[in-house]
Amino acid sequence: MPREITAYSNPLIKRIRGLREKRHRREEGLFLAEGLRILTEAREAGRIPHYLFFARDSAAHPLVLALVDAVEAAGGEAIETVPDILSKLSGKDNPQAVVGVFAEFARTLDSLDRTSAAIWLVAERMRDPGNLGTILRTGDAVGAGGLILIGECVDPFSVEAVRASMGALFTVPVVQCEWDAFLPWLRSGPGQLVGLSLDTSVDYQSARYEAPTFLLTGNEAQGMPDAYASECDLLVKIPMLGKADSLNAAVATAVMAYEVLGQQTKRG
Amino acid sequence: MPREITAYSNPLIKRIRGLREKRHRREEGLFLAEGLRILTEAREAGRIPHYLFFARDSAAHPLVLALVDAVEAAGGEAIETVPDILSKLSGKDNPQAVVGVFAEFARTLDSLDRTSAAIWLVAERMRDPGNLGTILRTGDAVGAGGLILIGECVDPFSVEAVRASMGALFTVPVVQCEWDAFLPWLRSGPGQLVGLSLDTSVDYQSARYEAPTFLLTGNEAQGMPDAYASECDLLVKIPMLGKADSLNAAVATAVMAYEVLGQQTKRG
Repeated sequence: MPREITAYSNPLIKRIRGLREKRHRREEGLFLAEGLRILTEAREAGRIPHYLFFARDSAAHPLVLALVDAVEAAGGEAIETVPDILSKLSGKDNPQAVVGVFAEFARTLDSLDRTSAAIWLVAERMRDPGNLGTILRTGDAVGAGGLILIGECVDPFSVEAVRASMGALFTVPVVQCEWDAFLPWLRSGPGQLVGLSLDTSVDYQSARYEAPTFLLTGNEAQGMPDAYASECDLLVKIPMLGKADSLNAAVATAVMAYEVLGQQTKRG
Repeated sequence: MPREITAYSNPLIKRIRGLREKRHRREEGLFLAEGLRILTEAREAGRIPHYLFFARDSAAHPLVLALVDAVEAAGGEAIETVPDILSKLSGKDNPQAVVGVFAEFARTLDSLDRTSAAIWLVAERMRDPGNLGTILRTGDAVGAGGLILIGECVDPFSVEAVRASMGALFTVPVVQCEWDAFLPWLRSGPGQLVGLSLDTSVDYQSARYEAPTFLLTGNEAQGMPDAYASECDLLVKIPMLGKADSLNAAVATAVMAYEVLGQQTKRG
């Protein structure tokens, strides 16, 4: 039977609200995800929240019921609450019907099976949580084996990244590591490292990709360091006809990933 | 000679800060853009701010000097100020070196020359300013003739949209109109209307596009209404192999636009 919390001063609410800050997430090993769609995605991927907060008036929704059941079966706690508190938890005026609190799940390079997918996404110093979440979402769509985050990236468990991922955080494995760990791992098996660059004349559509393809996207403002570019098996560029000579990093990653997917599909 | 404002209580600062709200933008016919890169993009596109705010310690930067010159030559006002006030204007802790106040520039359908470009972007009920700005940026990169916004879209002159556009707001014509105005205009001349849809078996890479191609992207959550889809000359889908069956709207638009561009380039 779900318990009820209606007082904003409740210590659990304060603690959960703190998870909007990275420091508290690291201390607790927990993070927030919100929205019925995202939490259902998580449930279907076998990720069940430790705590589930839901609004009283959404309690009859079959997907909410399924979540409550799953949480209670897994030994977590389902908590009925009021829209105001859901707003405080999610930081949005228009609260989602449900907010979940999940254990962070870190993956290591060694846990990845590179033969399990033909496309892998690699992002270095990705700073924008929206971009990171969007790249995860694209990763889900192209069937990527995972997203490997190199260096000082934004936290993939931040509220904004989870939101932008639309649930893909739960379906696409994420690894955080340093370049010095990534490169030896990459070279210990098959894999073509393809870097997106402005300093090449190779058009991304005329290049030929070899599975498993690791698509490397550099920092939003600076691109990737020369030292990383020189380790790539292939550097390609996306043509830009405009004045700005730049694409959003998540967009560029997606345009690349879909070209690779299209080639693999035609040959397959 | 630039004047100096260092007091936050200055009425002009209050008035400019108000432009972060849509209501004030409409009343004044003005909007905010920030950052040296974006303002330089604007200058090169012939858009000069009415007011230019710049930090004292950036005054020697050649691009800031070029902006100050351009503003004063155009009869606008360049105002030296302090980082604190720049933060207040831009709403960011880490202020940009420059903030510009521009006159809104609305375009009408009749002002567009559809033969001037092979790709046109059309978005209906686009709600996220980041998506709108990102689509503008993609539009710049693929050489789109313009972005046509249908129905209740987020304001393209919002601070967030301008920021995400990275200056493309100044280089890509934007028209806001209703579907009932768009459709007769479209049909009054050549143009293939291509809708992105989940309800079709036509793969976007196997379709053949005819210039000028008008790429229609629907609302982020709901896609486009059936009535709009049935007016399309072609409905295509982007394959999705994952669990979520969805792509970010700006990403989907970019994947489509680059496929069209690639086909046109190969045939051209």
